[in-house]
Amino acid sequence: MAHLLPAALEKVIDELGRLPGVGARTAERYAYFLLRADQHVSESLATSLEQLHQQVKTCPVTFALIDADEAVSPLYSDPDRDKTTVAVVEEPLDIVALERTGHFKGTYHVLGGAISPIDGIGPEQLHIPELIERLARDNVQEVIIATNASVEGESTALFLQKNIVDAGIDIKLSRLARGIPVGVDLEYADQITLSHALDGRSLL
Amino acid sequence: MAHLLPAALEKVIDELGRLPGVGARTAERYAYFLLRADQHVSESLATSLEQLHQQVKTCPVTFALIDADEAVSPLYSDPDRDKTTVAVVEEPLDIVALERTGHFKGTYHVLGGAISPIDGIGPEQLHIPELIERLARDNVQEVIIATNASVEGESTALFLQKNIVDAGIDIKLSRLARGIPVGVDLEYADQITLSHALDGRSLL
Repeated sequence: MAHLLPAALEKVIDELGRLPGVGARTAERYAYFLLRADQHVSESLATSLEQLHQQVKTCPVTFALIDADEAVSPLYSDPDRDKTTVAVVEEPLDIVALERTGHFKGTYHVLGGAISPIDGIGPEQLHIPELIERLARDNVQEVIIATNASVEGESTALFLQKNIVDAGIDIKLSRLARGIPVGVDLEYADQITLSHALDGRSLL
Repeated sequence: MAHLLPAALEKVIDELGRLPGVGARTAERYAYFLLRADQHVSESLATSLEQLHQQVKTCPVTFALIDADEAVSPLYSDPDRDKTTVAVVEEPLDIVALERTGHFKGTYHVLGGAISPIDGIGPEQLHIPELIERLARDNVQEVIIATNASVEGESTALFLQKNIVDAGIDIKLSRLARGIPVGVDLEYADQITLSHALDGRSLL
């Protein structure tokens, strides 16, 4: 199949094919779009990619992603954010999801993943010691464990809870509610979700 | 929502969001993957993008995409390819799809789109005059019209057929067969496809 497409186009297709969930056909479509579009579109994407690693770093306190010239995350340094409430998430993008609700005024702590023996991620790779330190330093009153609703997320939540209790820290611990998502029919909800929805029912 | 993510990351998300079919969430996932991956992955993609427009050009005979240092498409210059049979396609990537069959030994001609009044694409924007010239020059015996099975593809096929007949060129004209795709149950085939399958039935 050599030489069907120009080498430079094949190269772009190969590189785009590394993106998660992008197969050969999708990569071809993206590359062809970029070739048809004005040259500045691909050049502008190229420039942004070159600056990505240099201009992004991790907040030393919350482990959120921040600009290279910032000292700590603005969601932490902002005096309007309540430092005594900490939402613990797996990944930096989870912060974006929670911020989009406009419903949370506390601060965040990114674990940097979830415990997953299959992927070789043990608890020692997560930013748990830093969280424990922070609980005392910031006089934290409540930790909201906001890990994913996956097996790994659940194990991580349990592990975290045990760690905080074992450290002798007397603090309010909570989890995000599990239940029926908005807009979903009861008949399509799985058993476990439905059990959670029953357990967590609210009185009217 | 300003300042939720580092500016350099937002920039990559915006740029990736221009790709066809890529929404905000998908662009975020791609960008985060690139940030987590080794720096050379994004740099390598950046380099390939910078070279894309400079190193790819259009074949002056077949309008396929070729390397900037090639004179004509290797699928045309190859002496093993039958220049008297020409498959006419809408876009350069259609050539890749046909070549993957390993079933066609003729040459190609890319129209550069299909007639679509809604998108402002008229017949004068397609490489039809160049095809007509080529038919005489290469002593072409058969033109296989391989436009898409869409309304635009069908109109383009009809227009092309009329043009060739009107030019007084006596030549074999054919279309790709329409019918039931492999692996599809009869009950799920639409009416029009089924009608085509009946019309084009083969005797056993």
